[in-house]
Amino acid sequence: MNVQAVAQLQKYLRQSEEWDNESAALVFSEHNRLYLTGFPATDGAMLVTDDDAALFMDFRYAEAARRVVTVCPVIEFSMISQAMIPWLQEHGIKKLHTETESFTLEEFSHYNKIMQQVNGQALPDRLLDNCLREIRMIKTPDEVASIEKAQRITEEAFDYACSIIKPGKTEHEIAVEIEFFMRRKGAEKVSFDLIVVSGANGSLCHGVPSSKVIEEGDFVTMDTGCVVDGYMSDMTRTVAVGHVSEEQRRVYETVLAAQKAAIAAVRPGVRCCDVDKAARDIIEKDYPGTFGHSTGHGVGVQIHEYPRFSKSDATLARPGMIVTVEPGIYLEGKFGVRIEDMVLVTEDGCRDLTHSPKELIIL
Amino acid sequence: MNVQAVAQLQKYLRQSEEWDNESAALVFSEHNRLYLTGFPATDGAMLVTDDDAALFMDFRYAEAARRVVTVCPVIEFSMISQAMIPWLQEHGIKKLHTETESFTLEEFSHYNKIMQQVNGQALPDRLLDNCLREIRMIKTPDEVASIEKAQRITEEAFDYACSIIKPGKTEHEIAVEIEFFMRRKGAEKVSFDLIVVSGANGSLCHGVPSSKVIEEGDFVTMDTGCVVDGYMSDMTRTVAVGHVSEEQRRVYETVLAAQKAAIAAVRPGVRCCDVDKAARDIIEKDYPGTFGHSTGHGVGVQIHEYPRFSKSDATLARPGMIVTVEPGIYLEGKFGVRIEDMVLVTEDGCRDLTHSPKELIIL
Repeated sequence: MNVQAVAQLQKYLRQSEEWDNESAALVFSEHNRLYLTGFPATDGAMLVTDDDAALFMDFRYAEAARRVVTVCPVIEFSMISQAMIPWLQEHGIKKLHTETESFTLEEFSHYNKIMQQVNGQALPDRLLDNCLREIRMIKTPDEVASIEKAQRITEEAFDYACSIIKPGKTEHEIAVEIEFFMRRKGAEKVSFDLIVVSGANGSLCHGVPSSKVIEEGDFVTMDTGCVVDGYMSDMTRTVAVGHVSEEQRRVYETVLAAQKAAIAAVRPGVRCCDVDKAARDIIEKDYPGTFGHSTGHGVGVQIHEYPRFSKSDATLARPGMIVTVEPGIYLEGKFGVRIEDMVLVTEDGCRDLTHSPKELIIL
Repeated sequence: MNVQAVAQLQKYLRQSEEWDNESAALVFSEHNRLYLTGFPATDGAMLVTDDDAALFMDFRYAEAARRVVTVCPVIEFSMISQAMIPWLQEHGIKKLHTETESFTLEEFSHYNKIMQQVNGQALPDRLLDNCLREIRMIKTPDEVASIEKAQRITEEAFDYACSIIKPGKTEHEIAVEIEFFMRRKGAEKVSFDLIVVSGANGSLCHGVPSSKVIEEGDFVTMDTGCVVDGYMSDMTRTVAVGHVSEEQRRVYETVLAAQKAAIAAVRPGVRCCDVDKAARDIIEKDYPGTFGHSTGHGVGVQIHEYPRFSKSDATLARPGMIVTVEPGIYLEGKFGVRIEDMVLVTEDGCRDLTHSPKELIIL
């Protein structure tokens, strides 16, 4: 999937002061393993040294992994310690650097015991998480292509949703229909529990689709996405049913203006917090205090990656980043509007990966 | 959901030598929190002392949690440390016992810093995981009722699947239709990525539904389940399409005999490993080496709980346990058969919670 990534990780690791020729990195988390090897598996581990790497998979996955993984050998195990210890000895490893964000105390204790058997130790290493975060931020052309495939399905599903939204249908029904449309079109799964909220529920930015019936005059906000080749898409659209009030229209136009302003601000070198500000300033002017979340987040093998278009992320945008732009206005007890595209930072600005219309649609 | 569980946990904790009146348990993992409070939330934390408890939820969840949670107060936070420190001080807590199985190094470091601010420390405590595992093993009547509700939907979905399986359909199509059926019937979600494998793919016990087309003479194995009120069901059936060979029929009958023998062995006081043996002995006699997994596992708010009907689990069965019984035979390159029910251990034996027929069905 991403044959350069292991080499990049090795380059990063060599620059660390903690790292020496007795060091190996244990890449354990599902998403980091998927990212480096291209092979999805809920269990397993990867070891990376200065100049070598190996993927350890149990009997359930080993055969399938061998067919897919090209970056390193696949070593089959029934007990991981039995397979790993000879490899550690052969490579002279005494220091096993572990992730910290997703590595549990029990896992750490387990691997520390394995290391004791080779007279070494396990070391929590925040740098390893950070390296992988850095590398994963910049998408390769293959990764972009997968995300775009997922996004095309998401757009077809949006068109389909618009054709079935009617007064009398419930939020839950619409959410289920969108999900199954995506799955039938070949999506591996949905990127997250899809959000379909209507009317006053629309002010819950993390609302769960309920048995509330969609009514004339409702806004319906759909935050959806799906997974292709392990990569995710993410899009939100708010549509109106039957008619809109003047207030609804004003709020919609404000969110749309904020979203377009943020997208216009995306280019190499811009601070992520300034993209957030471009959207936030427009909303705060007319609807202060109604936009409670960040403007966007990176997307890849996970739905929330880095960087963030948020108040606190001063990362400079670089070509290859894919980030959502999704301002919203939430009026408690009344309604909510959110509009979300994914953009790819390019050499001279950005390319909007989302093609669904975003002018107000009244069904 | 389970109002006795917090009291049970407190009783366990008081028996521990590590525990004193400056101790609190941090229940952090999603499933343990759901189990104790009845409220599902991907984020948040629960503190339990000798005689008090509190659930900490951020703004996204706090309002909804207050409506549902009766076992303890819900404390809303924007930064968890700000909400937790006064509570820890008020209760005189210096030792924060943490889970180890799902608690990450980064989370541990975060909570240890919080504890330093009250001149205390965080302590990994395997006993906390074990207490919760123990308590969760014995299901209350409410929990049994939820699992049975999920199982009824699973059985309806099986009937539906039998009505649509035809030569020419793909495994993936059948899997999607089963899931869709369950969701339309009110399931919150599926218990796991549903397994539908056919023909030679049937020998992959963890197979992923593929684009392989179902053919005349195939066995189709469907391992499915769904979630109601946070509780899961789990059932496997293998059906034949068109006709079966003599070998297929013999293998099917062997698995069925093994499954019935294991169920007949389930009663209070039996060792879980002996239930496994009851099934395994029958298969090993005629098809040695073809049954590579355990006979069963507990089911509840997670799909794999304790106890296990496995070679190595000597736990004595007790009334209230719900465990799957799912032997299988996998003939590489040819076909596979697995038959799975869930049983509830009762005062004098067990009750089979699964009502779908398990004699060989030829569609």
